[in-house]
Amino acid sequence: MILCDIGNSFFHFYEKGHMWKVSVKDRPDLPFYDDLFVVSVNEKALEKLKKLYPSLQDISDSADFNSSYVGLGVDRVFACMAMEDGVIVDAGSAITVDVMASGLHLGGFILPGIASMQKAYALSAPVLDRKFNFAIDAEVLPQNTVDAISFGAIGAIVAMIQKVTKGKKIYFTGGDGAYLSKFFDNSAVDETLIFKGMQKVIANLAR
Amino acid sequence: MILCDIGNSFFHFYEKGHMWKVSVKDRPDLPFYDDLFVVSVNEKALEKLKKLYPSLQDISDSADFNSSYVGLGVDRVFACMAMEDGVIVDAGSAITVDVMASGLHLGGFILPGIASMQKAYALSAPVLDRKFNFAIDAEVLPQNTVDAISFGAIGAIVAMIQKVTKGKKIYFTGGDGAYLSKFFDNSAVDETLIFKGMQKVIANLAR
Repeated sequence: MILCDIGNSFFHFYEKGHMWKVSVKDRPDLPFYDDLFVVSVNEKALEKLKKLYPSLQDISDSADFNSSYVGLGVDRVFACMAMEDGVIVDAGSAITVDVMASGLHLGGFILPGIASMQKAYALSAPVLDRKFNFAIDAEVLPQNTVDAISFGAIGAIVAMIQKVTKGKKIYFTGGDGAYLSKFFDNSAVDETLIFKGMQKVIANLAR
Repeated sequence: MILCDIGNSFFHFYEKGHMWKVSVKDRPDLPFYDDLFVVSVNEKALEKLKKLYPSLQDISDSADFNSSYVGLGVDRVFACMAMEDGVIVDAGSAITVDVMASGLHLGGFILPGIASMQKAYALSAPVLDRKFNFAIDAEVLPQNTVDAISFGAIGAIVAMIQKVTKGKKIYFTGGDGAYLSKFFDNSAVDETLIFKGMQKVIANLAR
């Protein structure tokens, strides 16, 4: 069984603990053909994969997910499905933060991704068009421009995640997940969250 | 006596409690000519004003300001000069946050302005290119995309200001100052901070 999570830029594949990704511009050449389960936020890339593997099963709408949130992306739904309790942070081009309690999705919010924050400073003023200092100390007031924007942006992301944590464990995924997790004691990095959610949904479908 | 704070976009004038602004693209036509004191972050606009009023006094470098911060903008210096103690927030195209204690500048940081944050979401993902809901409740987890980005951006700004407040009073200035001040009990809005700082510096110069 191969699992595939199709994002805006990549096909993310998972098989027996192994993960790999292929640009949506390229042709994914699967090592062998078996059951292929897919969730997708990218209609065009999904159609492309369907042409190559006509018997793939799109389970995007198959999650039995308990939420009042209108318009929750399928990637967020499946990552949340992996956890009964906790805060799920997907830190990519945008940073989504979702709160789960006893299998219920309580809501969530979105921050610009770290790279987008950097662009936001450049848009604010040319003098702020600087690279972040990722070694910034979150507890010491900055004394220069680079530290001032790094402290502001990274501190803001960390402060907002802290705000909804309330003792819960935080699960980080996405490209900046490992970096952000360092600011939190009660956290873990798990790049397989969406695939874990998919496995749960597939197990339910098979019942 | 007329005071002038020259920013990137405007000449800001102050005289006897009255304030007005003129685009740096236009020719400021002062109601009468008297002592004219100037601070400026905009060299080109300063030169323009000098040609019109050759006897103006540029006091940008005259502040006796106690800080270890390297590269602090003259607008931030003069706003901070107005206060011995407190947090000074200038919420414009960027949001600068500075902390003063007993006349000492302890440091500061910078956040993207609210409008730049909105652009940062648009850069993150097309689906996030939405206008903020400014009536967002900062204590209730969002249940849709517009609330999720509004809660994230505005909450992040508020959380970072809260982080350095520690019981101090917060003085807001700049275009979004009045809006942001609503999230804080111990706060005031003061559009004259830079001019108050200028008055203090001018009084010291006259001694």
